[in-house]
This record gives sequence, structure tokens and C-alpha cells, in this order.
Amino acid sequence: MVILMEKNTPEVNVERVIERLDKEGFDVHRSTGVEHILLGVIGDTAKLDIRTMQLMEGVADAYRISAPYKLVSREFKPDNSVFTIGDVEFGGEETVVMAGPCSIESEEQIMRIAEKVAAAGARVLRGGAFKPRTSPYAFQGLGEEGLKYMRAAADKYGLLMITEVMDKDQIDLVERYTDIIQVGARNMQNFTFIRALGKTRTPIFLKRGISATFKEWLMAAEYILAGGNDKLIFCERGIRTFESYTRNTMDISAIPVMQKLSHLPVFADPSHGIGLRDKVLPMARASVAAGAHGLMVEVHDDPDKALSDGAQSLYPHQFEELMAQIRVIAGVIGRKIAEPVQL
Amino acid sequence: MVILMEKNTPEVNVERVIERLDKEGFDVHRSTGVEHILLGVIGDTAKLDIRTMQLMEGVADAYRISAPYKLVSREFKPDNSVFTIGDVEFGGEETVVMAGPCSIESEEQIMRIAEKVAAAGARVLRGGAFKPRTSPYAFQGLGEEGLKYMRAAADKYGLLMITEVMDKDQIDLVERYTDIIQVGARNMQNFTFIRALGKTRTPIFLKRGISATFKEWLMAAEYILAGGNDKLIFCERGIRTFESYTRNTMDISAIPVMQKLSHLPVFADPSHGIGLRDKVLPMARASVAAGAHGLMVEVHDDPDKALSDGAQSLYPHQFEELMAQIRVIAGVIGRKIAEPVQL
Amino acid sequence: MVILMEKNTPEVNVERVIERLDKEGFDVHRSTGVEHILLGVIGDTAKLDIRTMQLMEGVADAYRISAPYKLVSREFKPDNSVFTIGDVEFGGEETVVMAGPCSIESEEQIMRIAEKVAAAGARVLRGGAFKPRTSPYAFQGLGEEGLKYMRAAADKYGLLMITEVMDKDQIDLVERYTDIIQVGARNMQNFTFIRALGKTRTPIFLKRGISATFKEWLMAAEYILAGGNDKLIFCERGIRTFESYTRNTMDISAIPVMQKLSHLPVFADPSHGIGLRDKVLPMARASVAAGAHGLMVEVHDDPDKALSDGAQSLYPHQFEELMAQIRVIAGVIGRKIAEPVQL
Amino acid sequence: MVILMEKNTPEVNVERVIERLDKEGFDVHRSTGVEHILLGVIGDTAKLDIRTMQLMEGVADAYRISAPYKLVSREFKPDNSVFTIGDVEFGGEETVVMAGPCSIESEEQIMRIAEKVAAAGARVLRGGAFKPRTSPYAFQGLGEEGLKYMRAAADKYGLLMITEVMDKDQIDLVERYTDIIQVGARNMQNFTFIRALGKTRTPIFLKRGISATFKEWLMAAEYILAGGNDKLIFCERGIRTFESYTRNTMDISAIPVMQKLSHLPVFADPSHGIGLRDKVLPMARASVAAGAHGLMVEVHDDPDKALSDGAQSLYPHQFEELMAQIRVIAGVIGRKIAEPVQL
Repeated sequence: MVILMEKNTPEVNVERVIERLDKEGFDVHRSTGVEHILLGVIGDTAKLDIRTMQLMEGVADAYRISAPYKLVSREFKPDNSVFTIGDVEFGGEETVVMAGPCSIESEEQIMRIAEKVAAAGARVLRGGAFKPRTSPYAFQGLGEEGLKYMRAAADKYGLLMITEVMDKDQIDLVERYTDIIQVGARNMQNFTFIRALGKTRTPIFLKRGISATFKEWLMAAEYILAGGNDKLIFCERGIRTFESYTRNTMDISAIPVMQKLSHLPVFADPSHGIGLRDKVLPMARASVAAGAHGLMVEVHDDPDKALSDGAQSLYPHQFEELMAQIRVIAGVIGRKIAEPVQL
Repeated sequence: MVILMEKNTPEVNVERVIERLDKEGFDVHRSTGVEHILLGVIGDTAKLDIRTMQLMEGVADAYRISAPYKLVSREFKPDNSVFTIGDVEFGGEETVVMAGPCSIESEEQIMRIAEKVAAAGARVLRGGAFKPRTSPYAFQGLGEEGLKYMRAAADKYGLLMITEVMDKDQIDLVERYTDIIQVGARNMQNFTFIRALGKTRTPIFLKRGISATFKEWLMAAEYILAGGNDKLIFCERGIRTFESYTRNTMDISAIPVMQKLSHLPVFADPSHGIGLRDKVLPMARASVAAGAHGLMVEVHDDPDKALSDGAQSLYPHQFEELMAQIRVIAGVIGRKIAEPVQL
Repeated sequence: MVILMEKNTPEVNVERVIERLDKEGFDVHRSTGVEHILLGVIGDTAKLDIRTMQLMEGVADAYRISAPYKLVSREFKPDNSVFTIGDVEFGGEETVVMAGPCSIESEEQIMRIAEKVAAAGARVLRGGAFKPRTSPYAFQGLGEEGLKYMRAAADKYGLLMITEVMDKDQIDLVERYTDIIQVGARNMQNFTFIRALGKTRTPIFLKRGISATFKEWLMAAEYILAGGNDKLIFCERGIRTFESYTRNTMDISAIPVMQKLSHLPVFADPSHGIGLRDKVLPMARASVAAGAHGLMVEVHDDPDKALSDGAQSLYPHQFEELMAQIRVIAGVIGRKIAEPVQL
Repeated sequence: MVILMEKNTPEVNVERVIERLDKEGFDVHRSTGVEHILLGVIGDTAKLDIRTMQLMEGVADAYRISAPYKLVSREFKPDNSVFTIGDVEFGGEETVVMAGPCSIESEEQIMRIAEKVAAAGARVLRGGAFKPRTSPYAFQGLGEEGLKYMRAAADKYGLLMITEVMDKDQIDLVERYTDIIQVGARNMQNFTFIRALGKTRTPIFLKRGISATFKEWLMAAEYILAGGNDKLIFCERGIRTFESYTRNTMDISAIPVMQKLSHLPVFADPSHGIGLRDKVLPMARASVAAGAHGLMVEVHDDPDKALSDGAQSLYPHQFEELMAQIRVIAGVIGRKIAEPVQL
């Protein structure tokens, strides 16, 4: 932390600040300029409330200069984290595609869709068994039955499985079925929950909160890594802005920025990012072009009858087209995408 | 819902939309204008995904014209909800003040502060036993011990008690102590949790999510009322905007707007809304002037040593000054605030 | 500016940064901590692009620690700027009320409204002769004719006059009539225009840009003061946020914040801030309670037939009620508002 | 416009609304549902203030269902606008690249950079002669001298020229030199200025305002087309959000959305959108992948010494690399980019 004293503030104010920091165990470097006195504070300032310092008499401002997160930062670990889940490598050369319906609706539905996305080159099957809905009157998911169907579909077609856990009480149950736990945007700052996720050893897919800054997103991940779970994937899915024509504004710049700030893989979810089927393709291509380590895409073979989010789900033929396009785009920046599979 | 067809779209598209709505059980009124055909959809359209209609061929746009919430809306219940908790009336003529420290730090601390805020005219003691913190390395609260101290302090000084519950597993425990359950901004859309709160009969104090629209806030309350719990208080506490000088931008207009849209009481929390002690007084006065049904204010008798949020806590003498000021302001609009008490 | 070097960066990188700053004429203080080297940069860093430093090899981050504005800052001039225009004092004890229609529509209209607002205690007549409209197809104002009507009305009822100038070509014309020049939100960062305003000696009423940070607003004012015109009034009028129910989100906290950062008077415009008549009263009261040096309010005696912004204009009887309310509120914080006048 | 009456509102309120609309010359269709009465308003409702209707007694809400813009909308002109400037086609199959320095600094500088960007396949030379700066103390541009240098450079290397006009007084001067007039983000809603631009016949490059919605951006373009100038190009350049790590948040989704709403070409400016050189490449690739009709990129051969925005300018070798990458990406979606040129 750096503390800037007000111009011409009496020496007693400077001393009071130094004394206080000293008492709390920090070292203080004093630097006197032409107009201002600067105090450099050394030690673990993550525990210090910056506003407390800003309110002390004679303090003009205070700046945090070391990030309050450590384990997730690239400064702490300069090389990319590359890890495998099953036979799929994350954070490496491959741009990994996760695809599937918004909700698991029946055994047949998830089987049919799993076959199609596997054939096109997806490596992970996505689908929801517990649906967080803004309205208490909407479809809320199949629960454990859905997880069983989904596990069977993933196994049959050689896919990994990812599904959302909405609550810490569901962790044990869902872990029995899934390979990767998805944390939704609304839960990114549910600290009781994410602390619990730090204790599992199932990899975590952490979506960005709808109004989370990069720093807050990194801090949420820090909770999980601090618990000992270090297989974590970030996923950009759109933020809230003044523009309401699109459901959210997908922040493609989050991809290069988070890759710079952290060593962990960064994915993108254009289906939620844009919320309308006809815009999912361009945004998915854009994500790959920006260097995403992977994509999560909603695919449904009968989106008009989907019980949730049909409007943002791709038809299987659109998904195939997308896969063909992004194979070329990934190649441009030295990345690759799995080839189609003959099933 | 109103569906606007594209100019000159072939009749077959219009028929396809009508047929689909018909199948899902809606009545459709067709109205033909000079340029456009309009379809008025009648029935419970809350279950209909508006984007699905927008994507149908020939549809120019679709508009939801009835609110997806009912129980919380003023249309459903035109008169203000006025209810009592203990001996305090909420939503009525009195502007109710809740005050106390951010965190309960010790028995002595909460006793000292309770005495001071009660003397100045506060009716409810606030304080946190479980602290949601953005950093995993910061103070996390005293837990049940803190609840006991706080209950004792509230009882001794004739105050009601409000404290935050962070997780559905804590509801049973906290209910044994508190009069009102506070739901934090980060949990406003934690649907598993708020559905569980619908089943308790303890009144709920629902803070606005940091990026929640009025409609989303009303929908979250709808979850709770739909569960049967109808003693609910809204609390504005600042939203996230592009301006980062203040912690949040307190949206004072939420007070008159929510009072128009809903029959439930609307409070304001200027401490979190502004985040800096020297701005809490003006924002608290502004909230009362705008017609808030009550205030929640952080007060600490030694804010420099507070374990959390000291920077936004008022000193007791500032709180007394505030109470004197808002007594006059409330009078201007026909409201009143409790008089100081001789303890 | 403070420059934070990366942990363990080679000494050559530190030297290269120092050398570069040295060449550009800055003094550099080096401070070596446990983990990081800090460089304090002394000199007029307003001209230095912070991003250029951030991109140099070995630089972890760079922070601007002195404000890029000077003349408008309270650091530069610790006491409030208090100045008179005609017989009205701005920035002093009086909370000055400006009122009138959105647009001047006819001589009779502006006369009738001027009489009513003067009678209720307004000190300044507002009204637009040139209207910036988002639609090219809407009413664009009466032009110079309107200015003449307005000057006559102001003179007849002992009011000052304020009107908006939309373009630097209009300055000369409008100055012949008005006492105060209003700069609209959309022009706050029209630098050609505001530089021209620095050269006039007519006081300026500078509305906050719809997405302007406090710092940008202060910088825009700096342009005007740098030109030699030091009678400037800030006016908060609502910012753009994710919430679209209200036209804008009025940022009441701008009042105490700007009063802390600058010595110049800070007004509030609740009519544009909220955009709906029935919310103007609560927001106007809130602005006064937060300590505004003045208010600007739209009043129309037949708002249903107003050619612009009728929906946000108060009826004269509402304006009288507002004046009575805010007289009491202003008193609470040691301010006062002009008494009603017998005309 | 559709007007929704309140549930159970007395018939007299419905009649009063109909009567008012009738007087203003609109046709009204009445449709009675189970709960609500709906009024469909037919005629040129662009002139009707929606808030006026919302405030009438008995009105629950009002919705605008036809866009207030016409000439720019795809509904008005279903096919893409494709036009040529000099020998370059805009809005067609080619993804047109504009490149050059932020500011023209000297004759040698603009010549050197023009040669490099032309060689790499750029078709248009960009550069600023008049610089809008947030600080009154920063470099303000070379003025007409700069325009001369730039024209000479463009001519020598077979490029078109684009430069920003900041004020309507500069239009005549700049038109004598440039092929395309750039309108900066801060001027997008400077209505006096954009109305003047409608009268020129020089093509306009209209950047999105930093907090402009799609609808406001379309309305600004409508001003220009309404004046008779129909060669207009939109350019996304980043919007203001709560995230301040990046200068702006580039809204890549603006590309497919604006292409759907309008028939005019849509470009992207990743240099301003992201503001940091190392993120310009990924964002430029993302823009092309999303289907942009063109790019505007800042290139400088000595960015460390650039007088403005050096931090976001690409080195020439980075620009060449970018061109090679986006040639492949454009091909994926059936677009193409000019080949490198042997000079």
C-alpha cells in the first residue's frame, strides 16, 4: 500500500499514520517529494481496510499496490496451469469445447444431444439438473434423475460431464456423477459456498458474476485455491451494462486480460453472453479468435420446445458449422480443436 | 404479452405464431394497423420465454406487458403493507431506525453500542455474527456466540434485533435469536436460499443486489412471499456503476420507485451505499427526505479499531446528530422518528 | 505518479524506467521494499500517459497520485468559492432555486411561469431557446425570439436568467440576454466548446455528462477555469446505469463528494435526474438534505401541452409545496431558501 | 405505441386517453383482454413523449413498438448498403482496414507510417490533426498543416484518408483534404454538429458514444441521413462499464446487433476499445471473427515517443502479423482482406 499525505499536512499527522501502521506490524518507507510525502507500507496489507487509512487526518489518498490475491495470480506462478481431467487437457494447446442443452429434460433428449455434440468434436457434455430461475413459477430441473441420465450419455459418447451445483448441500450428490462442477454467475460471491468448493477435489468452472470486476473474480477463485482445490477454470459469460438490447454484454476482453493476470485457463460462454441464437455464432468465433482456452455452448435439437433457454440454444447443424469455423480460427493463433468423430 | 409482426410479413407467419400460442393455452387478440399486425396474448405469460417468440419468423418484437411478479406488486395490493414486529410498526407513519456495528466483536462492545443507539432513538439493533468477506484472509465473525451477546444487548435496551443469515443452513440457528433476518446483496438472487426463507415466519430484510434491477428485486421478494412469508422489507444499499470513487452509487430514487411498484416497506442503508463515514450523514438525510420507511446505519464507538467496515461507521455523537436532523426532515413529509430515550 | 516494479525484475529494467523519466524532466525517488521496488515520480505528471509507463518492461503497475486538475480542486483553494451574480449569492448560505419550463414556447407562457416561480421564492428563471433533441423530428426551440421573451420575463419578476448554449457559435448571441450559461450533459466533454466558454466572463452552469466520472467532470471545469472564467457551478443531473426504469439514476452522492473535491458550488437537477413528475419532489428534497448549494427544477403551468419534457415538469402548486418543504430541510443543516414573494 | 390500461380502471380514463390521442391525430385500436384493456396507437408516434402517456390517469404503462428511426433501419432498407469511396468498397465482401497513428506529428512520421500500413494491406490512412484531450494541458494537434502532410502521404501510397472533425466550423476546412470524416465518441450526440454533417456529401465514420445505446447510435445516424448524406459507417469503440481495468469495455456484440438493425456498414476500433497494445491483437481478431465490415487500428513506428495514445498503438511488425491472421479469419466467414502490396 502507498499512502499519499496531503500537501503541507503537519508532521504530527504523518507520525500518527506511521505509528498506527507500525502497531499493526507493517514496515513503513517514507519518501519526501516536492509537494507530497509518500509512505510505502510493506507487509501483508490484504488485511488492512484501505478506507480506514484514507480517513485518517492528513491522508490525501491510499492505493493498494499488491494484489489481494496470490495463488491465482500469474505473479505467483508465471507459467500457465495445464491440467487434465479424464483424457482432456485444459489450459494447453487445445481449445476445449463444452456443449449440450441448458436443462436435462429426459434420458432420450440428453442421449440424442450428447451424440450430436460428440460427433462434432465437443469434449465435454454440459446440462443442468438444478435450474436457478429468476421466476419462482418456472421449470426448476430434474434433479438427481437428470444427473443419472447425463452421466450415462457422457459415458456412452466418450465425453466428460459438467453440471451446475447451486448450493453447498448439493456438492456431495453432484460429485458422485460429474467430472467438473460449474459455479453460476449468481453464486460467484456466495462465500459460504465457494469456501466449501475449496475442500472438494472436483475441478471447478467458475463463471464471472454479472457485475464482478476482474479483481473480484480472481478473489473468488482465490477462496477455492486457498482451500486446496487448484483445478479451476474461469468462464466469461457477459456482464451487466447500460445496454439492454442484449441480455448481457459479453466482455471478450476478459479473455486476454484474465490470461494476463492469472495462470489458470479462461473459457467463454457466448450462449449466456449474448442470449440470442443468431448472435451466438459470431460471439463464439470472436471468443476463439481472442484466444479463449475453451468454449461452453448451448445446443438443443428442438430448441423451440426446450424447457429453458431455447432461444439461445444452437441447432445441431449450427453447432457443426461453428466447430468447422473455429477449427480454422484456432489454427491462426497456434491452437487446435478436436476433429469430428465417427460414432 | 404483445407481439409485433414485421411489416408486410406473409400471413403464414402470423398464423404460425397464433397457432403456437394457441397450443400453449393462450388466447390471442389480433389487431391490424396501417403498417403492422399486433397480437395481444392473454393468459399467464410469466411462463413464456419472450426470446422464443422474438426468434419466430416474421416477429419484429415482443413486449411483456404484465409484470412477472404479483404478490409483491401494488397492483395486487393497492394499500401499503403495515405490520408490527415486537412493538415496532413497519411501513407506517414511523421512520424506523436500525443501528449498530458492522460486526459483533465482543459482549462489551455490543452492549456499549446498543445502549448508545437506543438512547438516541434507534428501534432495532443491527450487527453481524457471520461476515461475508471478499477476501478469504479477513475476519469472518463470532458465530453463535455473537448472536447470544447481541440478543442480550437488544433485550437489555428494549431493541429489536436484526442480523444477516448467509446460508440456508444457518436459518434455524439464527432464528432462535433474531427478530428479523437480513439477506445480503450478494444473496438476493441465491434462489435455493431465498426459497428456504419463504418457509420461515421470521420477517425478512431484503437488500438490493449490487446490480439488480427493480424488477429482479421484486422477483426475489416474490419467491419469499410465494412461500408464505409476507413480512418483507426492501433495503436499497447502493448499486454498481462506472463511478468508482464511492464504493457503490446509492440509488436514492429506488425509494419512491419501489414504493410505487410495491406495497411493502422500503428502507435505505447509507453506510454501505456510500462507504465513507463523512458522506453517511448527507446520504442518510437524503434517504429520509425521499420518503424512506426506515434507515439502517452502522455505528461504532471506536471505529478505528473495528474489525470490519470501521471506515463507514458513525461515531455515537454523529449518530445522535443525525437522529436530531432526520426528526425534522421526517416531519416535513408527515412521518416521525422515535424520540431519544433516557436510559 | 508511483511506479511499481515487478517482483524480481532485473535491475536493468528499473534503470531504463528511471532514465526515461529523467529524460522527460522528472525527479525519481527509489524505494526498495521486501518484495517490490517503488519509484516515486515528481514533477508535472499530468502530461505523462500512465499507460506508456505501464507497458514498459518490468513495470507491474503505475498509479497517478496527484489529481490532473488544479484550479478547481479544494487542495488548490481550501475555502468555498462564494460569488454573486446580480444580487444572488452562489456557494454561500442560501440554497438557490432555479425554476421554469423546459422550453420557452411563447411570450405569455414564460411570463406566466416566471411570475409563479418568482412568487414561490425561486431566484433564477430557467428555460430553453435551443433544444438538443435525440430525434431529428422533434421541436427544436424558438431561438433568439425565445431569449427576448425570457429576458423580459426575468426582468419583470426580478429573477436572474439561465439558458443553455449548445454550440460555440451561439455564445455571443446568448450572452447578450442571459446571466448564466448552461452547458448540457452531452456537451460536457465537447472540448472545443468548453475551451471557448473559458474565454467568456458569463458564469457557467456545468451539468455532469451522463457517463462522466467525478474526475472527468472536474477536468471539464478545469478547461473553463484555465481560460480565466472562474464563476462555475456544477450540476448533478443523473447518470446512466443498468437500471432503465428511471430515465437516469440520479447520483445524490455527487453532492457531498464534489463539495469535498472542489471549492465550487454544486447544484442538483432532479427533473432530468429522475424524469418523472411524481418522483421529482422526493429527489429534490433529497438533494437539499444532502447539502446541495442549489436546485434546478422544471415547472410548467400546463405540462400536458408542453412542447418538451412535460412529463417531468412540476405544476406550480407542486413547486410551491416543494419550496415550503425544502425551506425546513435546508434549515436543518444551517442553510436557507428565499421566502415567497408578494408580487 | 401500445398503451396498457390499469386493471379495473374506470371507463372514463380509457376514454380520456383515446380522446387525447384522437386530438393529436392518431388512430386508436382498442383491445379488451381478461385483465387489461390495450390501446394500439397508429400514426407517427415518434413525436409523442411516451412519459406523457404513462402519467395519464389509469395508464399502467406505454410501449413504443416502432423504432423512432427509419432511414438507417434494416426494416426500411432490407439489403446491405454497399458503397465505394475512391476505389474501395464499403459494406461489401471486403473487410476494409484503416490504420495509422493517433496524431499526425510531422511530415516524415506520417509518410513512414503510411508506407508501412499500405504495404501490409491497409486501404485507408487514419490520423488526427485536431486532438480532443481530456486535459487542457496536453498536445492538441498540428491543425491544417497536419492535414496537408496526411493528404500527401495517402496519395503517395494509394490510400484513402480519414481524419476526425471536432466541430462544425472545421468541416469546410477538413473536407478539402479528407475522403472520410470521423466523428468521435464524444460528439455522437452533439446534435448541432451532426445536423451539419448531414449537409455535406463526404462519407461519415460515426463512432459509438461511450455510453450510447444501440438505439441512440441509430438515432444519431438518422440525423445525418435525414440531411441527405447516406454514406455512413458505424464504428464500435468500447463502452463505459463498471470495469475500470481496461479503458473501456469493447462491445463486440455491437457488430452482429447493429448489422441486424441497420443496413449500413459496421466497423470496430480495438485500439480505443481496449486501450493497451498487448490486447489490441486479440480484440482485432475477435472483431473480424464476429463479422465486422472493417477495422480501424492505431499503428506507430515509435510508439514510445508518440505524442498521444502511444500505449495503444501497434508496432508495424505487429500490424503485419495482425493482417496475416485476419486474412485467414475473414475467409472463414466468406469475407476477404486486401493482400500485402509491394511498394
